[in-house]
Amino acid sequence: MHILIIGAAGMLGRKLAAHLAARGTLNGQPITRLTLADVVAPTAPGFAGQTATMTIDLADRATATALAALRADVIFHFAAIVSGEAEADFDKGYAINLDATRALFDAIRLDVQAGSPVPRVVFASSTAVFGAPFPAKIPDDFHATPRSSYGTQKAMAELLLCDYSRRGFLDGIGLRLPTICIRPGTPNKAASGFYSNILREPLVGLPANLPVPDTTRHWFASPRSAVGFFDLAASLDLTTLGPSRILNMPGLSATVAEQIEALRDAAGHDAVRLITHNPDPVIAKIVNTWPQDFDTARATALGFTADASFDQIIATHIADELGGAL
Amino acid sequence: MHILIIGAAGMLGRKLAAHLAARGTLNGQPITRLTLADVVAPTAPGFAGQTATMTIDLADRATATALAALRADVIFHFAAIVSGEAEADFDKGYAINLDATRALFDAIRLDVQAGSPVPRVVFASSTAVFGAPFPAKIPDDFHATPRSSYGTQKAMAELLLCDYSRRGFLDGIGLRLPTICIRPGTPNKAASGFYSNILREPLVGLPANLPVPDTTRHWFASPRSAVGFFDLAASLDLTTLGPSRILNMPGLSATVAEQIEALRDAAGHDAVRLITHNPDPVIAKIVNTWPQDFDTARATALGFTADASFDQIIATHIADELGGAL
Repeated sequence: MHILIIGAAGMLGRKLAAHLAARGTLNGQPITRLTLADVVAPTAPGFAGQTATMTIDLADRATATALAALRADVIFHFAAIVSGEAEADFDKGYAINLDATRALFDAIRLDVQAGSPVPRVVFASSTAVFGAPFPAKIPDDFHATPRSSYGTQKAMAELLLCDYSRRGFLDGIGLRLPTICIRPGTPNKAASGFYSNILREPLVGLPANLPVPDTTRHWFASPRSAVGFFDLAASLDLTTLGPSRILNMPGLSATVAEQIEALRDAAGHDAVRLITHNPDPVIAKIVNTWPQDFDTARATALGFTADASFDQIIATHIADELGGAL
Repeated sequence: MHILIIGAAGMLGRKLAAHLAARGTLNGQPITRLTLADVVAPTAPGFAGQTATMTIDLADRATATALAALRADVIFHFAAIVSGEAEADFDKGYAINLDATRALFDAIRLDVQAGSPVPRVVFASSTAVFGAPFPAKIPDDFHATPRSSYGTQKAMAELLLCDYSRRGFLDGIGLRLPTICIRPGTPNKAASGFYSNILREPLVGLPANLPVPDTTRHWFASPRSAVGFFDLAASLDLTTLGPSRILNMPGLSATVAEQIEALRDAAGHDAVRLITHNPDPVIAKIVNTWPQDFDTARATALGFTADASFDQIIATHIADELGGAL
């Protein structure tokens, strides 16, 4: 089985590649070949099979043709311009999040129409396809009325994925991910960054600022859970999914106060005291438009599972990123 | 005021052009210039102002630039590959319904970013963006899960229209039209054709076949109502519409039996006896997946109105198409 990961240098792409390489199988079948593509050179994990890395420019339409020509059995498509950049650079956001995605689907279609087997395509979508006001729990079929160009591009790509799947040009599934927490690495400028910062930094004795009230509720999954979503999505029989191939992934709805109590349980009062409380009205305004909870009955019935508590999310971070202990 | 109609050779484009030319104003302002564009040469109505017709190829990207360069104050965009053809010719459907629409919006954006005034763009969308199962009455914000490539392309264009409007690149509104009935002309092969055929043909003494049970319910508006929708949509202040610029248009939910009783009222038993009842399971299967009724509270609050009864729809047809009498 040949697996292609597009966007393999990103956090989830890297973790998924490492996970698949370590197990060496997908859905019980041996992985013989792993191709990792990204705009910056991906790092190949240790792997017994054949591994290739590709540095690609998705804005170049020839890239889609080259990727489809690999005739991978499973294609994970993570590559995207993130929300803030897609809003700041209108052309770039549409070029990558819409045009490159469509070019990829279309190159696959032409290959399939020429006789190639239909590949599984697992697409990373986003809850940004939804816009406030929200119900208490957002179902899969809540209307997609995005409030950003990024959300618009993801919603358009979802529509394409469903139409191409319906026509038999690819076997697609799209996953709308919760906010990934605890995101490893260093603090970044994403509006959502503080949700990870206030745990990751104090866990290693560093300060972090909380710019919103601790009553703020949001929707989370650990990186390990997210890798599990993509792994399962690549393995499922999708013939019973019906016309919508897009699923809200399960997650944990929690307040910042609950995050902080889990930090206290794991690392004590001193860690919690490293959190400063300097309000940022700009971030608060953005965060207040974000969803807080989802109805994920459809994904749960298919076997997708996420973290049960922030204690578990923190334990996962300590195990996966901090060598197992503080 | 300069008005551009793209798709001006089609039934609604022609009727709208004639309506605007006859009145000579839009929203109380004089229309000084009317540009009619279509893939086949449009016919210009009698008009006191400046009229131009353009034969255009929307698959050619230069067309969008040329249309935007006209700097019309109001742009009506009717041009589309219809449902059946978009399903049969995948590339053509996407090329016109998605790519040409996006190229138009993008050419307008570039002009606006270069300093041109923001035009009103009125886009003809479709209830084909929705897919069964439906609620009793479909609201504006029912999820768009199309069951056709045509519906997918219209849903993607709606998302673009909303994003371009949100960013201030155009001032857009999209109208999801009921099935137009009574469609003038000769019987065509559209699956929905019989809804018009069973009235239009017997009204002039000709036979027509009903391929479905007379209990079949559907959603209708007369051509005159549809022209009224576009006229009003060009005139409204849209600043209060919020993030979704897409509206289900009002219509009449009626059964075939109700259509037939209105025919009997207007033209007597002999006219009704011209309807044959040869079931067509292929058409019945398609029609059974179509919506039957809509919640159009949002459009109604903005002043959009449709026909109150099939008696009225038939009277309108007699007035507009048959010279006022049978």
